Amino acid sequence: MKGKLYGIGVGPGDPELLTIKAIKTMEKCDVIAVPSSNDGEKTAYNIVLEYIKDKEQIECPFSMEKNKEKRIEKRKIVANSLIQLLEEGKTIGFITLGDPTIYSTYMYIHKIVKEKGYDTEIISGIPSFVATAAALDISLCEGDETLHIIPGTNEENICKIKNIKGNKVIMKSGRNMNKVLDTLEKMNMDVSIVERCTMKEEKIVKGLANIKKTEPMYFSVIIGKE
Amino acid sequence: MKGKLYGIGVGPGDPELLTIKAIKTMEKCDVIAVPSSNDGEKTAYNIVLEYIKDKEQIECPFSMEKNKEKRIEKRKIVANSLIQLLEEGKTIGFITLGDPTIYSTYMYIHKIVKEKGYDTEIISGIPSFVATAAALDISLCEGDETLHIIPGTNEENICKIKNIKGNKVIMKSGRNMNKVLDTLEKMNMDVSIVERCTMKEEKIVKGLANIKKTEPMYFSVIIGKE
Repeated sequence: MKGKLYGIGVGPGDPELLTIKAIKTMEKCDVIAVPSSNDGEKTAYNIVLEYIKDKEQIECPFSMEKNKEKRIEKRKIVANSLIQLLEEGKTIGFITLGDPTIYSTYMYIHKIVKEKGYDTEIISGIPSFVATAAALDISLCEGDETLHIIPGTNEENICKIKNIKGNKVIMKSGRNMNKVLDTLEKMNMDVSIVERCTMKEEKIVKGLANIKKTEPMYFSVIIGKE
Repeated sequence: MKGKLYGIGVGPGDPELLTIKAIKTMEKCDVIAVPSSNDGEKTAYNIVLEYIKDKEQIECPFSMEKNKEKRIEKRKIVANSLIQLLEEGKTIGFITLGDPTIYSTYMYIHKIVKEKGYDTEIISGIPSFVATAAALDISLCEGDETLHIIPGTNEENICKIKNIKGNKVIMKSGRNMNKVLDTLEKMNMDVSIVERCTMKEEKIVKGLANIKKTEPMYFSVIIGKE
């Protein structure tokens, strides 16, 4: 019997935002796959620490290399190390921040493993943007309103912020943050930003003028409402 | 001491998709507010039944009246009955399907209560559309992709399905379902629909041709990927 790969969404940061299903799935897994970033940060791991202490773990380093081939190469290495465990009949729970279906690096691994014929399943998690709206005590969309999730990753998307009508969530702005904020400034929107939402270091800033005065923000989600 | 109102997202249907925080919040509430629809269906209630059996409950009837004034009137009646409990110092947990910030009727009540000066808090839940992507074992957005949540409630929004580039989630199509499907047919998208996602009666249909052959679908979410 070959093993199965679960992609487990662990929510935005607060361990209490884990679902019962995520916890039960981790408990039944033989191995927990723990993603780590360039600088060794293991954000998802810190959220589920108390549930996986006694579990076999495998670290999965993802680099945020600009070079696309190198990124793909790293993912293949991770996928192959998981496939080896699946061949041994092990059930793997790959933990990932937020929800696996929303901009997670995990899905690249999921697709590789699935294409090779292994059994896969996604366990939903609370996406960071709904937690952001909760932190701001506002809705994301009501009635006939549309909601647009836009990554601030390139010029084309930054144009979309301006050109598409409706409420907006802007994620992954990173080094384009100033361009994103300048674009929002030209529009008549009610803008707020939450950094590290539901984590210990959570920071909420309301109003564009206040946002522009702050330091660069990490794990930040911007919500703009018409 | 006046009470506090919690809007608690109970996820899409599977009770295991409740978060620890949702369960803990229900446990600490004095009263659980249970929304019911025209035909007396209490979908959120059925999800959390085992956690609220011994709790005081208040039924909150929402009618889906076409008449906007009547809808607003109903909401005011619900809000006032909750305010009465808050005045008595009671903590209320208002349960709502999915996440409170995504198209929930609850938010109308939340705003009325908040504007009157009472303490409010939103407890995030798994939105139906991320559970839908999980049921289909696909991502909603990756890398530079944008994701557009569009309610199929009127002509303007149905036009947006065609005119906005990116991945799409179409909710609340209801009586416009055929128009929505006809619009999707003209586009080169990979379309699937899930009805009552994660509920016992879940039904998954992949491919537009197969969707068009099915009966009208309730609590259905369409995902279209470019």
